[in-house]
Amino acid sequence: MGRVTVRRPVLRLSAEGEHRRPDVLAAEEPLEIRVDGRALAVTMRTPGNDVELAHGFLLTEGVIGEPGDVRTARYCDSVDEDGRNTYNVLDVALAGHVPPPDPGVERNFYTTSSCGVCGKAALDAVRLRTRYSPAGDQVEIRPEVLVGLPGALRDHQRVFSATGGLHAAGLFTAGGEVLVVREDVGRHNAVDKTLGWALLAGRVPLTGTVLMVSGRASFELVQKAAMAGVPALAAVSAPSSLAVDLAVEQGITLVGFLRGQSMNVYAGTNRVCRSPIQSSTAGHGP
Amino acid sequence: MGRVTVRRPVLRLSAEGEHRRPDVLAAEEPLEIRVDGRALAVTMRTPGNDVELAHGFLLTEGVIGEPGDVRTARYCDSVDEDGRNTYNVLDVALAGHVPPPDPGVERNFYTTSSCGVCGKAALDAVRLRTRYSPAGDQVEIRPEVLVGLPGALRDHQRVFSATGGLHAAGLFTAGGEVLVVREDVGRHNAVDKTLGWALLAGRVPLTGTVLMVSGRASFELVQKAAMAGVPALAAVSAPSSLAVDLAVEQGITLVGFLRGQSMNVYAGTNRVCRSPIQSSTAGHGP
Repeated sequence: MGRVTVRRPVLRLSAEGEHRRPDVLAAEEPLEIRVDGRALAVTMRTPGNDVELAHGFLLTEGVIGEPGDVRTARYCDSVDEDGRNTYNVLDVALAGHVPPPDPGVERNFYTTSSCGVCGKAALDAVRLRTRYSPAGDQVEIRPEVLVGLPGALRDHQRVFSATGGLHAAGLFTAGGEVLVVREDVGRHNAVDKTLGWALLAGRVPLTGTVLMVSGRASFELVQKAAMAGVPALAAVSAPSSLAVDLAVEQGITLVGFLRGQSMNVYAGTNRVCRSPIQSSTAGHGP
Repeated sequence: MGRVTVRRPVLRLSAEGEHRRPDVLAAEEPLEIRVDGRALAVTMRTPGNDVELAHGFLLTEGVIGEPGDVRTARYCDSVDEDGRNTYNVLDVALAGHVPPPDPGVERNFYTTSSCGVCGKAALDAVRLRTRYSPAGDQVEIRPEVLVGLPGALRDHQRVFSATGGLHAAGLFTAGGEVLVVREDVGRHNAVDKTLGWALLAGRVPLTGTVLMVSGRASFELVQKAAMAGVPALAAVSAPSSLAVDLAVEQGITLVGFLRGQSMNVYAGTNRVCRSPIQSSTAGHGP
């Protein structure tokens, strides 16, 4: 895995006493995303799949919408004090027909409305930028499929099982087949890597898919789903108020507290075929 | 609690069937932090303790260092479409002796070094900005105290118990006494609110304290501890590689996987008085 994990010494204290041993940690390093040579954003990420991360970031910020919008994406020749390439600066050259991004793309996202900054303005900003509305996606998703996604996500988390310290995001078909899983110390980055993979694979808009995330569902994760045309977002933990509001406005199915054999559906209930959940895994413990 | 929680309808699906009921969610809204009338940052936060949040943000970004650095902090008269104040824009007027912040304060934090952007540059940037180095803090912290902190933090999480959807940060004395606990949909915001409270209370630098967070320990959380002079950071989950590197460089005690009666100490082991952990809560289970 190279730079994805790092070993560090640790002092383990427990009722059994103390032990010194090496521990495997998730790597975290800054990535600077440049567009046509100009710095656009710096994110703290787990190295790996950086080209996907940059594509996903630019997709969900509304800068690009299809693979042809990017001419090249490559690491700059930034070097550290020993003259080695850091592989922490990625320069994306846009195709000639793509307008350059606003350099304040992140900060200004919520302030485009006349009312200063508020939840309503944030919803409006997303609506203005969305190219692929998931609202018309008629896909049906069975609760039995949804309850299997957290386990499938975990099964594909290679780095988490080594470190216990990573967020994950995965794309699944409505039938529960895994398309891609990505991990990162940052939850937004895990989603960006996943959606960037999909863009590069020609799968955006992501009609008929479910995006599953390991943690909570925030406004910004629903925003990313909306920008990629994902009709359903499922999270292991709780959504925020504004995440629900955005899902309702964008016609996205939002599932939270997806644990064991149950879930809460906060928006887009029409896509979740309602029948009592068959307890298919009952008796299959631990 | 006013705007801290919000009710939304939810469809609950489980093996028992389906039920519609109202659910209590953590509120999430954008906050724009302005300095002397100019927008500096927008963060998605849970409304409440916004003045603390702004102080903590400016402290940990190196803009201010003591209460006297701020003249006033008040909500602007930003209004929504119905003419109501959104209470989502906070303007901080700096005292005359305080230099105005670099408008790119967040984005440029890791890029001040000649080597472009890399982990080393991020460590260097923090060292250049730290006013209150915790390295010389001789406080001793007993493992028995540390194992009690996650429970104490949870006991003070009022909103989490209602919503299940918030991060928390708490400041404790080395003896385990709680000073303050703050919750937010954003983990950075929970820490900023906590440290902002301390700044306003005249407690920065936070000599002799432990900062406890509900999730993982990232580089940015260790950075915030360093900027406020906190000698020990404890987390329920894993640290990242760069979090450990920064803690080592800044002389901060970093504790991870603080669960039950055990923990991992990744840096600053000298402050953790080592004696077998007394299993004081054994047999006290639910």
